[in-house]
Amino acid sequence: MTAFAERLAAAVRQQKTPVVVGLDPRYENLPTSLQSVEQGQNPAHRASAYSAFCRGVIDVVAPLVPAIKPQAAFFEHLGPAGASALADVIRYARDRGLLVIVDGKRNDIGSTAAAYAQGYLGIASAWGADALTVNPYLGDDSLQPFIDTARANAAGVFVLVKTSNPGGGRFQDLVADGEPIYRHVARHVARLAAEDAAASGFGTAGAVVGATYPEQLAELRGIMPQSWLLIPGYGSQGGTARDVAAAFRSDGLGAIVNNSRGIIFAHRRAEYSERFGESRWQEAVEVATRQMIAELRSDTPAGAL
Amino acid sequence: MTAFAERLAAAVRQQKTPVVVGLDPRYENLPTSLQSVEQGQNPAHRASAYSAFCRGVIDVVAPLVPAIKPQAAFFEHLGPAGASALADVIRYARDRGLLVIVDGKRNDIGSTAAAYAQGYLGIASAWGADALTVNPYLGDDSLQPFIDTARANAAGVFVLVKTSNPGGGRFQDLVADGEPIYRHVARHVARLAAEDAAASGFGTAGAVVGATYPEQLAELRGIMPQSWLLIPGYGSQGGTARDVAAAFRSDGLGAIVNNSRGIIFAHRRAEYSERFGESRWQEAVEVATRQMIAELRSDTPAGAL
Repeated sequence: MTAFAERLAAAVRQQKTPVVVGLDPRYENLPTSLQSVEQGQNPAHRASAYSAFCRGVIDVVAPLVPAIKPQAAFFEHLGPAGASALADVIRYARDRGLLVIVDGKRNDIGSTAAAYAQGYLGIASAWGADALTVNPYLGDDSLQPFIDTARANAAGVFVLVKTSNPGGGRFQDLVADGEPIYRHVARHVARLAAEDAAASGFGTAGAVVGATYPEQLAELRGIMPQSWLLIPGYGSQGGTARDVAAAFRSDGLGAIVNNSRGIIFAHRRAEYSERFGESRWQEAVEVATRQMIAELRSDTPAGAL
Repeated sequence: MTAFAERLAAAVRQQKTPVVVGLDPRYENLPTSLQSVEQGQNPAHRASAYSAFCRGVIDVVAPLVPAIKPQAAFFEHLGPAGASALADVIRYARDRGLLVIVDGKRNDIGSTAAAYAQGYLGIASAWGADALTVNPYLGDDSLQPFIDTARANAAGVFVLVKTSNPGGGRFQDLVADGEPIYRHVARHVARLAAEDAAASGFGTAGAVVGATYPEQLAELRGIMPQSWLLIPGYGSQGGTARDVAAAFRSDGLGAIVNNSRGIIFAHRRAEYSERFGESRWQEAVEVATRQMIAELRSDTPAGAL
């Protein structure tokens, strides 16, 4: 099977956009037709509502974008029933040709990290994801099982480098040996990516870099020239197309930009709620997706795709 | 309900030991009576074997130790079937009076961190854990939802400070403003713990500190005087009772010491395999648990319990 970095490049080129749709289901925000007054507190009901909702989003976005990013936390929030819904959503998305990046921010040490990696990465794994986000705090040896397993299964890894939250700098920005911690992490990711960069120029090791820090995006693009950057923080968190422009190579590859609430809960946004209402929520998803695609085409090198 | 730090102190005093049994099931290491030649590759079978195995361990250790620590990775490795097994094991352990610390090393930002926290922490949550391990890389604002949710639900949080793996220092030991990163994290944990330290002297915010770095254990005990320390790395990873002695207060409280493989797979250890064999694996679990309890009573302040 073709390496993940190459499959991602092909999918971005085919859809002519780097937009990733984040699946962050929250029961209170679902269209009312999927909520139940009697069953609202039942985790099994909530999980099946999450499945139905995410399938509905996938039906809309599969022809438009290269990948989706389910957020493990919102599924795990429901307990085991949520885990089943997550597996269902991953399978449904893959069957429709989408790449699936599970946002789990997992990590542990040694053989425990390997258990996570083997459980999530690759079509033959239990969860069957194409890629997983991982946390670097436990060190380089904790990242290695993810990289090794990803390479063996044509899957990808996105290492948290610089996160989009206001307090992300609390430890990431501490300066050691003249460089902030996030840059130490970035240099390690860059070395890993260089080890197996393929035709597109990208390797297995990607990075998560928040849209909310535009200068650091440019800096990190430079430090990790062979890494795909997964960029959260667009839209609801304040990141704009101009903010993320520096994350791309001139050919429009190299970065994928996630939007969760701004797309999946578009029916709740002021500009769409009146136009579509609750019942036409899927049309709101489509319009919001197309709008973000247009923004990135107009204001970033993604226009060259 | 009484705060987690107080419940942990009471449980450690009642059992007169700080030993925590780590539940890290791996199919290949299970007693052969729980393995199946025909069904060995089936995740549903593996999950039910994990449940049966962990229940068997819990039956043995519930009268002996204050807490168990299921490792989420090994359950998730099986996909959704593993998630159901984990939920079963948590419930079974709590019903037998054990405190349950889920080792998930979770984190994310803002409301996503809150989703993890609300899903795991407290008896009324979907998973029903008493405590959860969390990763600090995303910053202080990413830790806060766990602390807040834990406080509201009489649950606990163990923040990764210094991990037990060989490469743990790769980023944790980088020196910023004259102090390694792990110490910056430790000072933040100490501040959180001081905010709500109760009668026993401990607060909601605990820390994970590896047994494999004895000098740092002493240093971190000093920096976080009001935090429970969860210490992995005992036994299979090389940590000894003497190595962890400095983690305790003089009254024997303040640290809990985890052993996973050395206890649950004791039937595979050279010193027990001949004596008990596969079929008497539960006796091996009991003897290994009692041996570790004796080691800690003899060589650490836990003898004062």
